[in-house]
Amino acid sequence: MGAAARAMSNFGFADMRVVRPYEAAFREARSAVGALDLLANAREYETVAEAIADCSLVVGTSAGGRKRDALHDIHRLEAGAPVIQRTLNDKRVAMLFGSEKFGLSNDDLSHCDWLLHIPARDEHPSMNLGQAVAVCLYELIRDTAAPLPVQPFQTEPASAGQAELLTAVAMEVLSESGFLQRHPRGNMQAEVRRIVHRSRPNAKDAEVALGMMRQTLWKLRNPRN
Amino acid sequence: MGAAARAMSNFGFADMRVVRPYEAAFREARSAVGALDLLANAREYETVAEAIADCSLVVGTSAGGRKRDALHDIHRLEAGAPVIQRTLNDKRVAMLFGSEKFGLSNDDLSHCDWLLHIPARDEHPSMNLGQAVAVCLYELIRDTAAPLPVQPFQTEPASAGQAELLTAVAMEVLSESGFLQRHPRGNMQAEVRRIVHRSRPNAKDAEVALGMMRQTLWKLRNPRN
Repeated sequence: MGAAARAMSNFGFADMRVVRPYEAAFREARSAVGALDLLANAREYETVAEAIADCSLVVGTSAGGRKRDALHDIHRLEAGAPVIQRTLNDKRVAMLFGSEKFGLSNDDLSHCDWLLHIPARDEHPSMNLGQAVAVCLYELIRDTAAPLPVQPFQTEPASAGQAELLTAVAMEVLSESGFLQRHPRGNMQAEVRRIVHRSRPNAKDAEVALGMMRQTLWKLRNPRN
Repeated sequence: MGAAARAMSNFGFADMRVVRPYEAAFREARSAVGALDLLANAREYETVAEAIADCSLVVGTSAGGRKRDALHDIHRLEAGAPVIQRTLNDKRVAMLFGSEKFGLSNDDLSHCDWLLHIPARDEHPSMNLGQAVAVCLYELIRDTAAPLPVQPFQTEPASAGQAELLTAVAMEVLSESGFLQRHPRGNMQAEVRRIVHRSRPNAKDAEVALGMMRQTLWKLRNPRN
């Protein structure tokens, strides 16, 4: 119950309703230190009918493959979520989750307009309750138009001038280190330049790399210091 | 750890790697009755570098809003997932999750190509570890082309003939019950027919409703039986 409440809080859902909870566990969870407001404020009901009375759409959740579920339409989460979202524009929607051990009973399911199926593997479809809640609510708030990336560390790429400077200093290091002498090739400078351009460092990273190489160069030239 | 393993099993990911686990908890989790194979087979590593050595893409997960995360590109889960999926076609991808208490350290993060951000509320961004794993893996396996519904209970709609039969029997019930006499209207039959068509029952439900109404009719006509 605590995990379900946490997922609700993470994804911005506030109205938790609990039908005939196992009393001890529920009291403990709602009075725990740091319990979320939405758990402390969860409303208790005697029946599913009372809990969902003000909802225009009632969606059950199904672990899939159970006989009793086959009496309803079953929508995969990805496809059912848009229907829920549209309804949420101006109405209340109830999402019903059963206890982790027994799931939703036949009687619980009879209140549902249709069922939501989380596409877990057929070999292991039964999910942890808190995780099932998290996945369903995430699907409701996910944004298909999310930009990539939302938070670039540094998008300004190094200029061609910086790239050339990197190449030049790298060549000096390779020369001082004896690499060029040990591996004589046609045009090592062009090869280094290609490496620099392919790695496309951002301007800040290029600055840092340049500093590192200059220090290396200095040490190569001043080994005693 | 057990919850993370369960989400992996639910969504079809098998390769769990653990870096310097808290020994007691890890042994307990992997040897627990009913522990999943993938948890029992989880490989232990001393360092992040060793754990990810064979991976072509290393993605960290971020609760968002922490200073140390700002040293990387951060992609929202919805936008980052396709990049991971493409890479998974022919390469290995590491998804790094930190401990629930401390998250990923600066050193852990330095191994990451970029970070994945689960779009939880700014007011409560920190997710339960098992739930974060479940949501990230769900995003990787979700199917944007999922049909609606995957499992229709009964899609064959009642035929117009059945609808007419329903209407006719309903009219008989309304007549026998005295409803028509108490509420005389212009064209009650058309009103009933419209109700039947608007509710568009499927063929099976229509059969059941017909049986119920016939029984009602019989009882109305044979009140003593």
